[in-house]
Amino acid sequence: MSIDAANKVCLEKIQASTAVWSDIRKAKDVVPGMSERTVLHAGPPLSWKQMCGPMRGAITGACIFEGWATDPEGVARLAESGELEFDSSHHHNAIGPMSGIITPTMQVSVVMNDTNNRETYATLYMGIGKVLRHGAFDDEVMAKLRWMNFELAPLLRTALQHAGGIDLKSIVAQALQMGDELHNRNKASNALLLTALVPHLISVGEKEEVLKAIDFIDKSGHFVLNAVMAGSKGMLDAGANIENSTIVTAIARNGYETGIRVSGLGDRWFTAPAPMIDGVYFPGFGPEDANPDLGDSAITETIGLGSFSMAGAPAVVEYIGGTAQFALETTLKMYEITVSEHKNYKLPPVNFRGAPLGIDIRKVVETGITPVINTGIACRRPGIGQIGAGLTAAPMECFTAALEAFAGRNS
Amino acid sequence: MSIDAANKVCLEKIQASTAVWSDIRKAKDVVPGMSERTVLHAGPPLSWKQMCGPMRGAITGACIFEGWATDPEGVARLAESGELEFDSSHHHNAIGPMSGIITPTMQVSVVMNDTNNRETYATLYMGIGKVLRHGAFDDEVMAKLRWMNFELAPLLRTALQHAGGIDLKSIVAQALQMGDELHNRNKASNALLLTALVPHLISVGEKEEVLKAIDFIDKSGHFVLNAVMAGSKGMLDAGANIENSTIVTAIARNGYETGIRVSGLGDRWFTAPAPMIDGVYFPGFGPEDANPDLGDSAITETIGLGSFSMAGAPAVVEYIGGTAQFALETTLKMYEITVSEHKNYKLPPVNFRGAPLGIDIRKVVETGITPVINTGIACRRPGIGQIGAGLTAAPMECFTAALEAFAGRNS
Repeated sequence: MSIDAANKVCLEKIQASTAVWSDIRKAKDVVPGMSERTVLHAGPPLSWKQMCGPMRGAITGACIFEGWATDPEGVARLAESGELEFDSSHHHNAIGPMSGIITPTMQVSVVMNDTNNRETYATLYMGIGKVLRHGAFDDEVMAKLRWMNFELAPLLRTALQHAGGIDLKSIVAQALQMGDELHNRNKASNALLLTALVPHLISVGEKEEVLKAIDFIDKSGHFVLNAVMAGSKGMLDAGANIENSTIVTAIARNGYETGIRVSGLGDRWFTAPAPMIDGVYFPGFGPEDANPDLGDSAITETIGLGSFSMAGAPAVVEYIGGTAQFALETTLKMYEITVSEHKNYKLPPVNFRGAPLGIDIRKVVETGITPVINTGIACRRPGIGQIGAGLTAAPMECFTAALEAFAGRNS
Repeated sequence: MSIDAANKVCLEKIQASTAVWSDIRKAKDVVPGMSERTVLHAGPPLSWKQMCGPMRGAITGACIFEGWATDPEGVARLAESGELEFDSSHHHNAIGPMSGIITPTMQVSVVMNDTNNRETYATLYMGIGKVLRHGAFDDEVMAKLRWMNFELAPLLRTALQHAGGIDLKSIVAQALQMGDELHNRNKASNALLLTALVPHLISVGEKEEVLKAIDFIDKSGHFVLNAVMAGSKGMLDAGANIENSTIVTAIARNGYETGIRVSGLGDRWFTAPAPMIDGVYFPGFGPEDANPDLGDSAITETIGLGSFSMAGAPAVVEYIGGTAQFALETTLKMYEITVSEHKNYKLPPVNFRGAPLGIDIRKVVETGITPVINTGIACRRPGIGQIGAGLTAAPMECFTAALEAFAGRNS
């Protein structure tokens, strides 16, 4: 099969894939290959020594949550002893924003892909600012984490089951007509999720817990994001491992390196040092506080959302910086490195063209244009949390390395 | 005061005005000047003989609802006898989409304008297709009308009171960042309204009635519209009667004539025959079935929403026809006949410019550009309902007549 034909097959599989948020389960009960001491993280694999501050902070919170340690020093000792089994979430059909830490007792969303008959997992979204995924772990964060895992998750689970699942692909398609780009602007998608969930929450829950859940989902503003990330990964994985395909199926960052995966090159990661982010900072913080690019959320860009769909979401520039014109230009530029347009995800401001879909490593190298990513900025010091949001890109070295591997794959 | 200074005062009052949906009450208990046999309608005043099919159809349904008659013939006899007191809703601080019929027992939303300390009223939105405001009155329509008035309205009333009112101006401002133009696309604003109402519905209602109310508000897609219309009228009325102001404070159509009101010219209507609509028809209908332009909903355009804000809502063209480019151009054209830009209603795709605000009768006449209105199309025959949606404009004759009156006002 020619490269173009292989890419076509890849993109057909990606677009045929469904994404139904069907359940919420404890990670150890569903995530494959999870031992009693597994700690999954965002991005390509890395060692404790290589991990950045926010990832270490999140691991600290997760270990305290699991009861494996009681303070940061104890967690560091545990990590250095080799007792924790670190691995990339991507190796376990899972995904997480920012540090993306998943430990066995955490509750994860289950997003079903009917095409592959595969489940993809993601933790629950915790809010912005001082949150675990950005490396914060004080008492307030830990209390929220416990409430989410032991109270919110069981209620949502029952509501999701009562609903027979929530169609995330439909929510994404609608939200793209409502000013979301689904990575850093989720106002419409979150409202659509809430609208879809509310009748089921009311049907299955007690009044007070339902009110608390609705308030949390509404105020968090981005609650839907993690499930959309799982759905996006599930779709992209449906297009993985197509021989001869040059389509990127994952972009992920661990705060140390950015890595990409390419359909025709299997599960291999092509990595380069994680870049900094050009962004807008919350009051009291600046570039000197910023961690390099971190998190699995660039899976949204990989499926044509995020900065790829910014033309449809000009209001996101109020959060990440820039102008509406820049948002439009970013989308137009991303068409230059993609081989298709998403048949379900349409962008009204560019006359309903499909979102730029199918990043081709050849096009990236030929044009010199790297995939733009809009993203949150974590504080480089553990324990602080999110300090801003902005724009970065997946480094060119990932794509040149992948293209070299592709050229030499039969040699 | 110069005309420009007067217009500035007018627009400052309009923009300072709040719009809080505070209550739902029976029309006869709150709407001023409402007798036992008052029938309020959209647009400038007109006689039964002049009324179009859909308005007669809606009056038929309303009279049956009130128990004044049992069939269309009985209603016609009643109307011809002179027993019904027809008047424009605008003369009673009220407003309604399409035929806009309000009779004494109907429940109306109360939207509070703190600046003027004035309440503005509108009936509850009933859905699309076969509905009273478009002239339908079969058993299904009547049953829905009764459910809305006797079950939904009391529940919503209690929820609104529990909420301490819903800030419609904030919902409109947010929804403009989410692809709504608030006249024919209300997907985001309706979801925002639902999100705001849900906690209070849950707090005050019984599970089954709450589920039914949520389902109705969600599925109707435009439930928020009527309250937004009342809010818009309240704001514009805050800018009415400013001596020397050439700003349009109302555009309204009764299916026979389109009328405008101008701030410096008091409560006088300047009318011209209502034009046809260039639109997209529901299956089975065409232009030969269409009624001329009808309804008070052009109040949204008058406050800078609707077609004036189409640049921010390109997806509306899927409903009313046209392209995203056309939506953008329509907004840009409306800046040519307005003297200001709304300081709260911002449009992201034009780099967050304020919505075109303050239609100046001088500019309309000078440029030859009439205010574009996007609107639903009613079937000209009574009893059918909505058959499509599209675009029209307020006729130039309204503006030339107003300008003549303005020029001669002191002579």
